[in-house]
Amino acid sequence: MTVRNIKLTVAYEGTAYAGFQRQEQPVAIQSALEQSLQRLTGEGLHVIGAGRTDSGVHALGQAVSFRTASRIPIDRFVPALNSLLPLDIVVLTAAEMPADFHACFSAKSKTYTYRIWRSPVRPVFERSRVYHFPRPLQLPAMQAAAALLEGRHDFSCFRSAGSSVRTSVRTIFEASWRDEGEILTFLVTADGFLYRMVRNIVGTLLQVGLGKHPPDWVAELLAQRQRPAAGPAVPACGLFLVKVEY
Amino acid sequence: MTVRNIKLTVAYEGTAYAGFQRQEQPVAIQSALEQSLQRLTGEGLHVIGAGRTDSGVHALGQAVSFRTASRIPIDRFVPALNSLLPLDIVVLTAAEMPADFHACFSAKSKTYTYRIWRSPVRPVFERSRVYHFPRPLQLPAMQAAAALLEGRHDFSCFRSAGSSVRTSVRTIFEASWRDEGEILTFLVTADGFLYRMVRNIVGTLLQVGLGKHPPDWVAELLAQRQRPAAGPAVPACGLFLVKVEY
Repeated sequence: MTVRNIKLTVAYEGTAYAGFQRQEQPVAIQSALEQSLQRLTGEGLHVIGAGRTDSGVHALGQAVSFRTASRIPIDRFVPALNSLLPLDIVVLTAAEMPADFHACFSAKSKTYTYRIWRSPVRPVFERSRVYHFPRPLQLPAMQAAAALLEGRHDFSCFRSAGSSVRTSVRTIFEASWRDEGEILTFLVTADGFLYRMVRNIVGTLLQVGLGKHPPDWVAELLAQRQRPAAGPAVPACGLFLVKVEY
Repeated sequence: MTVRNIKLTVAYEGTAYAGFQRQEQPVAIQSALEQSLQRLTGEGLHVIGAGRTDSGVHALGQAVSFRTASRIPIDRFVPALNSLLPLDIVVLTAAEMPADFHACFSAKSKTYTYRIWRSPVRPVFERSRVYHFPRPLQLPAMQAAAALLEGRHDFSCFRSAGSSVRTSVRTIFEASWRDEGEILTFLVTADGFLYRMVRNIVGTLLQVGLGKHPPDWVAELLAQRQRPAAGPAVPACGLFLVKVEY
């Protein structure tokens, strides 16, 4: 029996889910994927995700991997799983990987985006996929503050309680804002993220955008390494896991 | 007591509603607007809509009007109503109109758009706002067929049973397709539309796109003036009332 290691890229609207990681109630993305894979293969499979997205967080390109002894051709996984999965989860690609590939540990970088709805009138069609923040923002200051995040730093000040990782040192390869009219988008790529790090960073950069702190405040926060000093976390609904690079 | 005539432009996601027009169950857009206006003004108001969108049909710019004796300043209607309305309905603008303005009868033209999701993989985030139709389409033939709809015609062949209008002659000012990558959009502007006319037109143009009929089929259908000959209606979820011109 040959055990195959398969990687899927998955998109989902996280609104109705408890996040990626399996738990009792409500249903997690991981459980939905495992149930569909079990129906497809007849095996009790364990799915590993690259990022443990929180409840309400979305994915455009989450990566997951699982081991299976099934002989289903690789090009059948996408259509078969998409006919079994709930409508708010879709598998985009499936690929055969080497035995040592692990969706989480093999990841070299992850990219997240956070979307802010700027119009005074609240969003309708985008309401579960943006954060409505209609107050005037100083974008150049937010851009300058974002640039200070780039590089290798101890990001303790942006880590929420509840995580148990050994080190809080990460490298941000890119952090920048894009003005897309009604929507303002924050894009960040790093070798890894701490618990709620993106939402804590965005909340802090909004404080800078409101003029409550200068851009340099970000450098001070990084040096202080204390969470309470930074801005409050923004809601989950604006956050998307865009892609995972290996 | 001065009776004012007020026009609102309204956007909504129609998925959870029975359409625009008031009825018993489930809730109609019209009822939701009237309930919010009643809470705001204390009056039992009657709201007139420009277009009676069907169940599941969306609006980017529906127009409605109502008469009121309330003295609420005109610039308070948008924020006040948006704090009272369900999250899938939003008021975009409010304007004071002459006494003879009527959202339906005063309309000079309406524009609808229909969105088709072409990718083989089903949509996730757009799933209630597109029609998933992944089969290959001949766009130039669909474009040629759409052009034959423009002008003043008897559109009986595109009218579904259930309407009771006197004449089925309408003028289409523009009918065209736009290729937006993953999404193919049909845009149509006319002085009025018959019951399910846009969805019946799109279903017919898809038959042309599949190569089942040449573009000239549209001219034949118009001349025959019989509904059963045309293509089947496409689902409501892809349809948006874009704007109403006065």
